[in-house]
Parts: sequence; structure tokens; C-alpha cells
Amino acid sequence: MTRVIKAEPLTAEAFKPFGDVIETDANAVQKAINYGNTTRFHDLAGIDTAKNGGRAGVSIFRSTPLALPVTIKLMEYHPLSSQAFIPLSARPYLVVVAPAGVFDAPAIRVFVASGDQGVNYRAGTWHHFSLALEAVSDFLVIDRIADEDDTVNCVEHALTEHEQLTITL
Amino acid sequence: MTRVIKAEPLTAEAFKPFGDVIETDANAVQKAINYGNTTRFHDLAGIDTAKNGGRAGVSIFRSTPLALPVTIKLMEYHPLSSQAFIPLSARPYLVVVAPAGVFDAPAIRVFVASGDQGVNYRAGTWHHFSLALEAVSDFLVIDRIADEDDTVNCVEHALTEHEQLTITL
Repeated sequence: MTRVIKAEPLTAEAFKPFGDVIETDANAVQKAINYGNTTRFHDLAGIDTAKNGGRAGVSIFRSTPLALPVTIKLMEYHPLSSQAFIPLSARPYLVVVAPAGVFDAPAIRVFVASGDQGVNYRAGTWHHFSLALEAVSDFLVIDRIADEDDTVNCVEHALTEHEQLTITL
Repeated sequence: MTRVIKAEPLTAEAFKPFGDVIETDANAVQKAINYGNTTRFHDLAGIDTAKNGGRAGVSIFRSTPLALPVTIKLMEYHPLSSQAFIPLSARPYLVVVAPAGVFDAPAIRVFVASGDQGVNYRAGTWHHFSLALEAVSDFLVIDRIADEDDTVNCVEHALTEHEQLTITL
């Protein structure tokens, strides 16, 4: 039987070891611009995409939810770059991460992000692919685009049966 | 009396002289990834932020709508970089642009973007600041962040009374 883990609410503090939470948080630097018509919540994510000739690219991911309860069987990381996901469908979603380095299943953390929270995985952070909840959902993605095979910047780990875990909300 | 211009629907074709429309368009390159659970609408915008030591940054703009009918009195452009806006509040908004180069008021185009269309202004494209409609709205913004005064990468033009225009929906 796989380990069961309950998703915890996503906070910038809890996510700090893995990357950034992209949100209009009171702690963000706020600038009044456009003659007072706009508040700029400034510089919310460390976009890191330039290594080995890469550039920052913008894509939209349309994700189909996995059946609940979700069992985590695969994790991945991007050695060369960050990857940011910002929900466009205003629905909560799951964020599953583990610290960079040798994959450590007991160190997996599971967060439930609200529909107005994005995440930016730091280069090297183990994560599961986007896990929509409730319905097919779109995410804006900012990641590295380069003239090379997709496998160069994506390392996958298939979890052993012992490492797998099941998520409850 | 100022010129009155009716906003036209935003399409990638019509917007081509000014930049990119960021949307899940049938013409986008679509890749099936994550073992079929995700469709990636790939590389939807030319992010151009690296000049003179700049980097791509992610911010959220919270925009207060101007009173309708909106009169356009000010335009701006960023000589060194692109600037992308993606709506996070699923509401339509106005996009007001003019071709790069010497400001040409009769060449102003006014688009109404739907809540699932982002725009990316190419470097040099004249544009109005973000024009939310209906209610205070959030936009994800991808632009250039650099260690320099904000005025270095923002050129403004105050429209003469003759150049000003009023927008109707």
C-alpha cells in the first residue's frame, strides 16, 4: 500500500526551498504606476532560462486532471532552467515537489495552490507535471526554449512502488 | 471634439504589426506532453528582454478601469524590450497601439481582447497602459527588469488635443 499524504496550503514561506510563489502578496514590492491606475507587484519570480543558449519562452499548457485520488508515480526536474506555471482557469491545482539533488521520496511535499497562485520551480527542483483539479485547466508557462532535444533539459525519475504516494485533499 | 474609434476584436493577424497574441489558437504549435495529460501550445510570444543587461521578470499588474468612454491622452513604448500582458481575471480589456517609430496618431488601432487572450508588445510598439474594463483586474506581466532608472526603457508621448481619441465598445 502506498503512503498517503494530505496536500497542505501553498505559502511562499513553505515553498521557499523549491522556488517562488507568484501572487499579489502583501510582502511583494508594490509600485504605483500609470498615474495611479495600476499597482505593480514587482519581480515575483526568478526566471532562469539563459544557460547554454536558452531563452525565456511563453507557452500555455492545457492539463487534464488525473483521477482522484492521485498516485504520484513520476517526478522530473530541469537541470538548466526554472519553470513557472500561472493558472489561467482560476481553479486550484496540486503542486508536488522534492528538493534538488538525489531524489528523496520521503522529502516530497504536496501543496494545493489556489487559482490565484502561480509557482516557479527553481532549476533542479523535482516536481510532478501540472496537476489540474476539477476540470481541464490552462496554465501560462514561462520556461526555457532552446535549439536542442527536449531530453537535454528534463530528467525523469519513475518512482519505485515503495516511493509512490497517494494524495488526499 | 476628439475622434471616436470603435474597438475591434483582437486577432493574431490584425495584431501582427505590433506583437503577439498569446492564446490557445488552432494555429499554435501544439505538443502532446506529460504522457498525454497535457497539450503544450508552444512558444507563443517573442520575449525580448536581454538588451543592456536586462532580464525577463514576472510581475502582476492590478489595473483600475478608466471611466467609460475612455479618452486616450498618453501613449508609451519600451525601446529596449517587449512587454507581455496576460489577463488573470478572465475579463475583456482594451489594447491600444500604434506602429513603432515616429508617433502617428491616425495610425492608432484599438482592440478589445477577450479574457483568454494575452498580448506581447514588441520593443518599440506604442501602446497605452493596461486598460481593464468592468472591474479592477489583474494581469501577469513579463517584461524587462534591469538595474537602471525606469525612465531609460519607457518613452511617453502626451497626445495633443488634436491627436486624442475616444474609444467606444
